[in-house]
Formats: sequence, structure tokens, C-alpha cells
Amino acid sequence: MCDLLRINTDRGVMIGDGKSRFSINGKPIYHFVGTSTFSEYTVMHVGCVAKINPEAPLDKVCVLSCGISTGLGASINVAKPPKGSTVAIFGLGAVGLAAAEGARIAGASRIIGIDLNANRFEEAKKFGCTEFVNPKDHNKPVQEVLAEMTNGGVDRSVECTGNINAMIQAFECVHDGWGVAVLVGVPHKDAEFKTHPMNFLNERTLKGTFFGNYKPRTDLPNVVELYMKKELEVEKFITHSVPFTEINKAFDLMAKGEGIRCIIRMEN
Amino acid sequence: MCDLLRINTDRGVMIGDGKSRFSINGKPIYHFVGTSTFSEYTVMHVGCVAKINPEAPLDKVCVLSCGISTGLGASINVAKPPKGSTVAIFGLGAVGLAAAEGARIAGASRIIGIDLNANRFEEAKKFGCTEFVNPKDHNKPVQEVLAEMTNGGVDRSVECTGNINAMIQAFECVHDGWGVAVLVGVPHKDAEFKTHPMNFLNERTLKGTFFGNYKPRTDLPNVVELYMKKELEVEKFITHSVPFTEINKAFDLMAKGEGIRCIIRMEN
Repeated sequence: MCDLLRINTDRGVMIGDGKSRFSINGKPIYHFVGTSTFSEYTVMHVGCVAKINPEAPLDKVCVLSCGISTGLGASINVAKPPKGSTVAIFGLGAVGLAAAEGARIAGASRIIGIDLNANRFEEAKKFGCTEFVNPKDHNKPVQEVLAEMTNGGVDRSVECTGNINAMIQAFECVHDGWGVAVLVGVPHKDAEFKTHPMNFLNERTLKGTFFGNYKPRTDLPNVVELYMKKELEVEKFITHSVPFTEINKAFDLMAKGEGIRCIIRMEN
Repeated sequence: MCDLLRINTDRGVMIGDGKSRFSINGKPIYHFVGTSTFSEYTVMHVGCVAKINPEAPLDKVCVLSCGISTGLGASINVAKPPKGSTVAIFGLGAVGLAAAEGARIAGASRIIGIDLNANRFEEAKKFGCTEFVNPKDHNKPVQEVLAEMTNGGVDRSVECTGNINAMIQAFECVHDGWGVAVLVGVPHKDAEFKTHPMNFLNERTLKGTFFGNYKPRTDLPNVVELYMKKELEVEKFITHSVPFTEINKAFDLMAKGEGIRCIIRMEN
């Protein structure tokens, strides 16, 4: 949570001189969250650059730069499920699938995927999910469904939707005495987290994480090494790969949802 | 958080047969939270009995049975302030003073006591408090006062009031990136904990604790040992000592507030 380089979507300029390094026909083009990687070359603050294994294929490991590392780290670094434990993952988009994969790597034995879209369940099995709950299939709160499935509550939960109700459910579904819930999704600016404080007094823990608690410069190279050592299969996170000229097709695929995860290729 | 023996103020009877062991003139007298210690002899479930050092003076170590252990444990077992860190304690009653003492034992170097009653500040110095904030003295939220005093937030906070606003303040006053807030006070049954979820995403942790996470049977004897080894001065937690016949005087002293902590002596 570096004060100087903390993510700032409004800044759009370099910190040193408050200016942009890009232009088109004399008009400035602003920087996006300190990286601006939709170009062949870019200019970044040194603190935003991580040196990774030069053998790593860039068209694969580029997906480790944001959501996937966030989900992985949320499980591995923050939720830290003990071996043999039960983990609930709220939301099976790319971040949630990465959180499931992280829970699997950490040694969880039951990984319960929760999503309103049942089309995502089959593929989520590849990421370690062993069971599924679609809240639409139940006429009681998902916390109660999970409590029944797990004799009182899950050991860990990871919330990857950004929906405030899912955040509250993710907290309230963990077991008294040792349960830990981790919030990952970015909430609406007017969202309010509400719960009865007695839920805390029963010895539960609620944490949030940013970028999965990874420090990008020092930790991202090690996430790439997980791939190089074949402990993390990056390929399964990629459903489509389109050239830059078809970038709008990639956005269309994303907008259609259904768990599509896409790479934009820079090509000459 | 034992399912069988979990505190239950409504039960009032023994678990084995659903009956009380006390009566007066043929009318049953019910058991209070599994102990009923306002009598010379009592009957308890074996799981509610802890064997302590037989050398320990019972008229002193009896104060370790509830609030004081809760406060100590909240700091030592749950907040776990690193050596040299800054801790905020919300509420300087007996539990809050014990939490301050626990923070001191754990190695915190700045312990900021927060209370609406400035009369409590002088005595709280004996329990390790180094600085004080009276929210009445400021026309901004106490979170902001603490952020200014500590360059962004305290490392740990412990809430010992049961007031829902203090709970929210205790969470919002911890530093991004590593801050941990611990809720100890028992809230009103209709209370609602509310905060913006972004406060979690900035890598803060919120935990609650019951009895300071001590397991009574196994851990209370060790708390008594802290006293026997003179690492914990129990005497300073006692302001008055009254015989059983004057028990109502003790309640009057408590109701008057001002941080009075009292022992009821059983005498023949």
C-alpha cells in the first residue's frame, strides 16, 4: 500500500513532472493506473516495473498482472486455508477462479463455488472447485445453505464479485471460532457493509486485500515462477486470444459474460 | 467456542438433567452462566472448572475470571501488537484497562486511551496508557484525531465499550496495509456494524474475541501464573473490597461509574 504509487485512476500523468508521455497529433494521451500497457512501448515509474524470468512467454504471463494474481494471493497470502479445510468462493469470474486455484494450491480439500450463473460451474472444476451453490436454487440465505453443507460454516471464504450482499454473505458464512473471510471485489462507492457485531465477537475475522497482498515488484516474479515450475497452469485462464486490431471484439466477449477471459495480442 | 458449554444466560440449569442445584424454601434458584459463584459452594459442569495454582490468593485472582482476562487476552492473543507499535484502547473501564495492560505486556510503546470520561485518564497511566483522547474535546471524528496523531492510523485498536459507534471508530482508526482492530464489547442486540467496504480492501483486518480467545480450562491457570510471577499486578484492578452483606453497596459503586472496580468478599 505504497503511498507514492498507490493505484490512482484519476492521475493519468507521470509523478515526476505531472505530464503525460504519450500524444497523438499533438493531443496528450493520459496514462492508465501507472502502466498504460495497451501499447508496444510505455513509460512507467521505476516502482511500477517488475523484472520477471526472461524465459517466460509474455503472451501467457501477461494475465498474471492484475486479477489473476489478486485472486491467487487472496487465497494463498490472506485467507491461508489450512490443509484439508473448506473454502467458499463467491463469484466464478477470472478473479474467483484464481482464488479457487489458490485455495487448491494452499491445500483446501473442499472448495465451494458460488455463482448466480450455473454455466460457470463445469469449467470451475478445472480450478479446484469441488461443489457449487447457485443462490437462485434456494429460498434461504446462502449463509444458511453453506452452514448446513459444512456443519456450521466454512473455514475460509473469498469474495470476488464486488457486490455488497455477497460481501456480507461471505463474512456471515464462516464458522464461529476460527472462520476468516477475505474481501477482494471492488465495491460500489456508495456501498455499505452491514452486519450484527455479535458475528465478530464469536471469534470471526474479516479482512480485505488489494492485489492479493502481493508486493508487485518483489512478489510478481515469484508468481511467474509458479507458472515456470508448472505449479500454476496459466493457459486455463485464457479462453480467447485476439489481435489488437480486434480489441473491440474482446470487449464484446467480456460484456457477454459467461466467464470469458481474453488476451489482447500486440502484433506488428 | 465450545458448542456444549457456550455461554447461555437463559439456560439457568445443569446440562445433564435440565435442573437447578439450588433452592431456597423449596423454590428453585437458577444457575448464572454456568458458574453461580455468588455462594460459598456451587455445582458446575466439569468443563466450567479450571484448576489454578493452590498458592494463589482467591480474593485477588477471582478478578481474572471474566472482564480482566477478556481485556488482557484481546491484546495479547488477538490484537498481538508488535514490539514498539501503537495501540488505541476504546473505553477505560476494567476491560479497557486490562486491554491496555495486555498491550503493554505485548510490547506496544504508544498506548492511546480513549474515553468520554477524563477522570479515568490519570489512573489509566498505571495500566500502560501513554496518551489520551477525549472525543468530547474534538469537533472531528476520533478516527481523524488518531490518524493525525499517528501518521495515518494506529497499528492496533481494541474496542472495550460495547457502543456501536466506538466499534466503527475502532475499525476505521487503524492504518491501511496492516492495521488490526479487535472488538471486545458486547453490543446491543439491535446494533448494526456499518462501514464502507473499501476500508477492508485497503488491507485492514477486523476481528472479534470472546473471553480474549482464552480457553478457560487450559488457559486461565496460566493467567493466574502471570500474577504469581509478578508479571501482572492484579491489585491495581481492585479499587474496593466489600463483604457479601454489602453487595448492594458494590453495585451502587459500579453504577456511579468513574472507573470503580470492586471485589465482593465471601465471609463467614
